[in-house]
Amino acid sequence: MEKIVEYINSNRQRYIDELVDIVKIPSISCSSEHKQEVERCAEYLKQKMLAAGLTRAEVMPTPGHPAVYGEWLEAPGKPTVLVYGHYDVQPVEPLDEWTSPPFEPEIREGELYGRGTTDDKGQVYAHLKAVEAWMINEGRLPVNIKFIVEGEEEIGSEHLEQFLAEHKDLLQADVAVISDTPMLDRGVPSICYGLRGLTYMEIEVQGPSVDLHSGSFGGIVANPANVLCEIIARLKDENGRVTIPGFYDKVVPVSDDQRRNLASLPFDDDAYLKLTGSPAPCGETGYTTLERMWVRPTLDVNGLVSGHVGEGAKTIIPAKALAKVSMRLVPHQDPDEIAELFIKYVQEIAPKTARVEARKLSAGVSFLAPYDHPAFQAAIRALEKGFGKRAVFIREGGSVPFVGTIHDTLGAPCILLGLGLPDENSHAPNEKLYLVNYHQGIVSCAYLYQGLAEVEF
Amino acid sequence: MEKIVEYINSNRQRYIDELVDIVKIPSISCSSEHKQEVERCAEYLKQKMLAAGLTRAEVMPTPGHPAVYGEWLEAPGKPTVLVYGHYDVQPVEPLDEWTSPPFEPEIREGELYGRGTTDDKGQVYAHLKAVEAWMINEGRLPVNIKFIVEGEEEIGSEHLEQFLAEHKDLLQADVAVISDTPMLDRGVPSICYGLRGLTYMEIEVQGPSVDLHSGSFGGIVANPANVLCEIIARLKDENGRVTIPGFYDKVVPVSDDQRRNLASLPFDDDAYLKLTGSPAPCGETGYTTLERMWVRPTLDVNGLVSGHVGEGAKTIIPAKALAKVSMRLVPHQDPDEIAELFIKYVQEIAPKTARVEARKLSAGVSFLAPYDHPAFQAAIRALEKGFGKRAVFIREGGSVPFVGTIHDTLGAPCILLGLGLPDENSHAPNEKLYLVNYHQGIVSCAYLYQGLAEVEF
Repeated sequence: MEKIVEYINSNRQRYIDELVDIVKIPSISCSSEHKQEVERCAEYLKQKMLAAGLTRAEVMPTPGHPAVYGEWLEAPGKPTVLVYGHYDVQPVEPLDEWTSPPFEPEIREGELYGRGTTDDKGQVYAHLKAVEAWMINEGRLPVNIKFIVEGEEEIGSEHLEQFLAEHKDLLQADVAVISDTPMLDRGVPSICYGLRGLTYMEIEVQGPSVDLHSGSFGGIVANPANVLCEIIARLKDENGRVTIPGFYDKVVPVSDDQRRNLASLPFDDDAYLKLTGSPAPCGETGYTTLERMWVRPTLDVNGLVSGHVGEGAKTIIPAKALAKVSMRLVPHQDPDEIAELFIKYVQEIAPKTARVEARKLSAGVSFLAPYDHPAFQAAIRALEKGFGKRAVFIREGGSVPFVGTIHDTLGAPCILLGLGLPDENSHAPNEKLYLVNYHQGIVSCAYLYQGLAEVEF
Repeated sequence: MEKIVEYINSNRQRYIDELVDIVKIPSISCSSEHKQEVERCAEYLKQKMLAAGLTRAEVMPTPGHPAVYGEWLEAPGKPTVLVYGHYDVQPVEPLDEWTSPPFEPEIREGELYGRGTTDDKGQVYAHLKAVEAWMINEGRLPVNIKFIVEGEEEIGSEHLEQFLAEHKDLLQADVAVISDTPMLDRGVPSICYGLRGLTYMEIEVQGPSVDLHSGSFGGIVANPANVLCEIIARLKDENGRVTIPGFYDKVVPVSDDQRRNLASLPFDDDAYLKLTGSPAPCGETGYTTLERMWVRPTLDVNGLVSGHVGEGAKTIIPAKALAKVSMRLVPHQDPDEIAELFIKYVQEIAPKTARVEARKLSAGVSFLAPYDHPAFQAAIRALEKGFGKRAVFIREGGSVPFVGTIHDTLGAPCILLGLGLPDENSHAPNEKLYLVNYHQGIVSCAYLYQGLAEVEF
């Protein structure tokens, strides 16, 4: 291992340069305009897998964006590790809030700025570079390894479940390692054992058939923007609880034990909140910040649009109003059932004076790992070696739909080894990656493969 | 008059062609990008005034877009008529809903489609062509005439009051004729004697300092889009009444007499509503459609924007949310006072978990004319001659801020002689002008000048 770690240390700058190159590809999965760039990124990644020493790499089609598969399977008798990540990225709007352009990566104060640096290209590359370091220095890996890097994570991994079912044998593994989550804080290497699920909805309100003059028609027809606001206002109550009937029916209450565990983590509520820039904490009454984030469901508007949104004072009653609303879910809420409850409730509270439609855009189950498996201990040890700090078990408020799916399909333990940080602006302008974590992440991955080689599955 | 009317009839097509030319100029006043086009339109209009036979025409600067002034004052002893209109137009979004491009006018089934055709270039041209017909056939006008055609009507006539104060002598007149309103219906020529006022506000909610990942942060900070919806939902109650304290304090109740008058007009509620495409009527409980439109105030969201409004499912807590909200006002609501009440109320109901700011974008007073002045009878007679149909007195739900201002400043009666129709999509895609009204409007204006020459002011 010494030789490998030394090699990783001396190639630090090259690893950064190579990450910069892939971040330059604008692989925005939600934008049909960027379809070719997404495909270009997949092809590029395939080449990089082969360059790292994998013996096989393929761009595999799905009905949406392709997934990239890679493997090295020359360690008979040793465990097989499946590494998951994604090469697609979030959109970049509002563009004018980026200090440097999202696809022209720039290093400032030890952080690499660019869309996809932390979510998730940097984390995928940490594994790929660890593989490369093993192959160059040892000519082999201590375990069999498979990579599955998808192109639709940021749009709900729509085709992944089907893909997994169709390629179950190909992807079969003893353990899955997912690197697509943040650590608890800088200097707190973390293994995540729980993720929230997601149900993402759209509400569309149609009022008049065209935008109307708000003078000539103001007061005699329902305004779809007002109607939309009234509907959204009724989705949560004054205690921050979701009002959709049945929403909490399957939510497992927070146990005293769990509360104590969460309270014992090195987590600074004030510092975390400060990082958001919000003027005050806000959330479901009766729960702490970590509980609100990790073990309680929530509902957020992700986007709103109606009528005149440009400069000045255009006086219209808009014809339409649209909202995107997502709900983060916890065990054992069923995301499809939640979508149905949402639609039913919106229809119930919708006035008859406008046409209101609610529809599901995507859904993903929550995830909770039994983290007493020895593979988790191997991961904790690998992080402690890579980062030189004690690693902790955490949960995460976000969703990685793949995790629940692979866990259920392959029946393999899933280790969420995250190398991001909570303030790295994933999904926001000025996304960045702390380069110390990138480097120590590569070292940790190299140790992880060695550690997993010793685990009995 | 016969010769003049015959001339107007035989120049029908040329008048349309000339209107097409000015509609081609995209004089969108709310868009700073279009500043040069607005100025080009003012200059063009000045040339057309001189071509019509006015002896003086000038593009007059304001701190915003210029106004165009024109005059013919060679009828000593005769009344002076001030004609008001505007050459600026509304924005054109959403562009993809236009059947033909907004600035490439096209005639379909007797209607001229294009931005500004009915609001207000066609109505300004009706006067200008009537002047031309008089000048060519008689070498004179029966009255002194002044034109003031402004470039900021669609953005609240921001600088008009000041302009009027500075040029009070220049604009002094015995009667003002404003052509910028619709008739009650096709075949119902109308003189409007009342307009609603307008207070146009913007509400901005700032939550986190950047867009946040809705997974990692969902549940612990206030979502500005949710907050905005909650605020807007609280601006009106379930009876369609505005909830802002003090909002109705100065509203004059609808009298029985007024109710009878409105009920006697040839107005078909169902047909009018059908024209909007809305599925059902909706408005303040206890009032008829005409009452809701003309004599009761209202509140409408004109635009909403927050977060991700593109394709797909971007999972963010937006940093900001913005709404444009306008209120149509009636006598004797004070638009600036209403703005203050609005701001105060929004601040009261805003949560402390986000930063909420409400600000005034524009304000204009309502207007109610004493329509027993003989000038109004002259206008009714001119319309009956031009249209061959009985004309009626109506009110209008829209606002023309200039009207109240000129009435108060010059102390002259203001006649709102509208040549538009309620279904002509002013402020919406596919704005159009019924060409029969344009033609008969030119004839009516020619008669109007003659009629006003006989009125004693």
